[in-house]
Amino acid sequence: MKITLIGGGKLGKQLYNGCTAASEIELVQWVVRSAQRGKTPEGISLVNDVNVLHPTDLYLLAVSDQAIPKVAAALPEQAFVVHTAGGVALDVLNQNRAGVFYPLQTFSEGRNMDFSKLPIGLESKDASDLPLLEKLVQALGARAFHMNSKQREQLHLAAVLVNNFTNHLFAEAATICSQNDLPFELLNPLIQETVNKLEYLSPKAAQTGPAVRHDQKTIEKHLTLIQERSLQEIYKVVTLAIQKKQ
Amino acid sequence: MKITLIGGGKLGKQLYNGCTAASEIELVQWVVRSAQRGKTPEGISLVNDVNVLHPTDLYLLAVSDQAIPKVAAALPEQAFVVHTAGGVALDVLNQNRAGVFYPLQTFSEGRNMDFSKLPIGLESKDASDLPLLEKLVQALGARAFHMNSKQREQLHLAAVLVNNFTNHLFAEAATICSQNDLPFELLNPLIQETVNKLEYLSPKAAQTGPAVRHDQKTIEKHLTLIQERSLQEIYKVVTLAIQKKQ
Repeated sequence: MKITLIGGGKLGKQLYNGCTAASEIELVQWVVRSAQRGKTPEGISLVNDVNVLHPTDLYLLAVSDQAIPKVAAALPEQAFVVHTAGGVALDVLNQNRAGVFYPLQTFSEGRNMDFSKLPIGLESKDASDLPLLEKLVQALGARAFHMNSKQREQLHLAAVLVNNFTNHLFAEAATICSQNDLPFELLNPLIQETVNKLEYLSPKAAQTGPAVRHDQKTIEKHLTLIQERSLQEIYKVVTLAIQKKQ
Repeated sequence: MKITLIGGGKLGKQLYNGCTAASEIELVQWVVRSAQRGKTPEGISLVNDVNVLHPTDLYLLAVSDQAIPKVAAALPEQAFVVHTAGGVALDVLNQNRAGVFYPLQTFSEGRNMDFSKLPIGLESKDASDLPLLEKLVQALGARAFHMNSKQREQLHLAAVLVNNFTNHLFAEAATICSQNDLPFELLNPLIQETVNKLEYLSPKAAQTGPAVRHDQKTIEKHLTLIQERSLQEIYKVVTLAIQKKQ
């Protein structure tokens, strides 16, 4: 299958690596806005303009949410255009042949993404285009899940909770450790166990701590220990939410 | 070293398993309030009353925070009494020989705890008692970290953030998945990567998502997707905290 990849950001780079490593995928051109035209070290045609594209089976957009409609509008009307965003509806793509390829992962600079087993949310305007998306997922070694735009935006919200918000809690914990001359690494086994527990317990059943046991003395003590207003707010609302949920 | 273990809750059971498995530890008696007096399957003397205890090198209290002062007060004045609580100061123990042995982990029913490499926060009134606590940690295969009561209570607060609060975010995400006919397991690779990233990036540097990139459109959309008031509050305060921190 011939593919055009558009976008040179974090996700674009990972998709570039994934596509060039997969023998079933022929990456024809890679569009990177800030790049000089030429060839990548892997011999792929590198361009900086969507108006010089060769026809391919699929145009994969790894651009910012805001840029998706504009970039799609610049592509041929008959092209099969696929975006990669969790929170953007399928219908922002004006082409009749349009789809979504949403990799449920966080992508960081300098980290090589392992596509194997990675869940990819798939959607297409026309069901006859799904097999091509499934073939792409398979070529990358990932796992395909069909979902509509409503499910995908909810999944994106859930991803924000378990990744962005969880990471913020890690950042707050790291600050507490550093302010008290404690290595953040002390918390690693606890963090790992918090995740490992999910294999055999639902998170609701796994809930422990002062909030769920209504240990008001510890809760009030923690609130006096916290200096920063924003962390105090988090402590209060999450404690109440835990107590409401159980 | 001869030890008396007091407490038959989640932590008490894990310590019982750890102590009976360690050849350097002689567990003399195990006090479990609700138990019938007799012998455990491993042949340890099981009692339900702290007034029938034999003298040992160390009395390890795995009881609730609230029960610690009362249980300690019932033990001999000359005993070496050690509690296991993250958020309880050393000086609630009235003995002159007193200490803290705080395993930085979450303990669930039905899950066998791996003490190897587990960080244990140690403190003692008299520094000459520390070697015995270190010996206990070593016998369990765990790792000793010296910290005072102030550091320990801060570490306990950090533990609440990375374990209890993180787990609540997992519970909210699980609810969203189930309400939208999506398997929660879809989020596993993302959760695992959120943790794996900590090995090479500080959580502050690893922060991604709508909050940190001030993507107000997505933030507002997510707030409309959330039905429950308590999760809306969490979404708002964590988003603001991320934006303030970066």
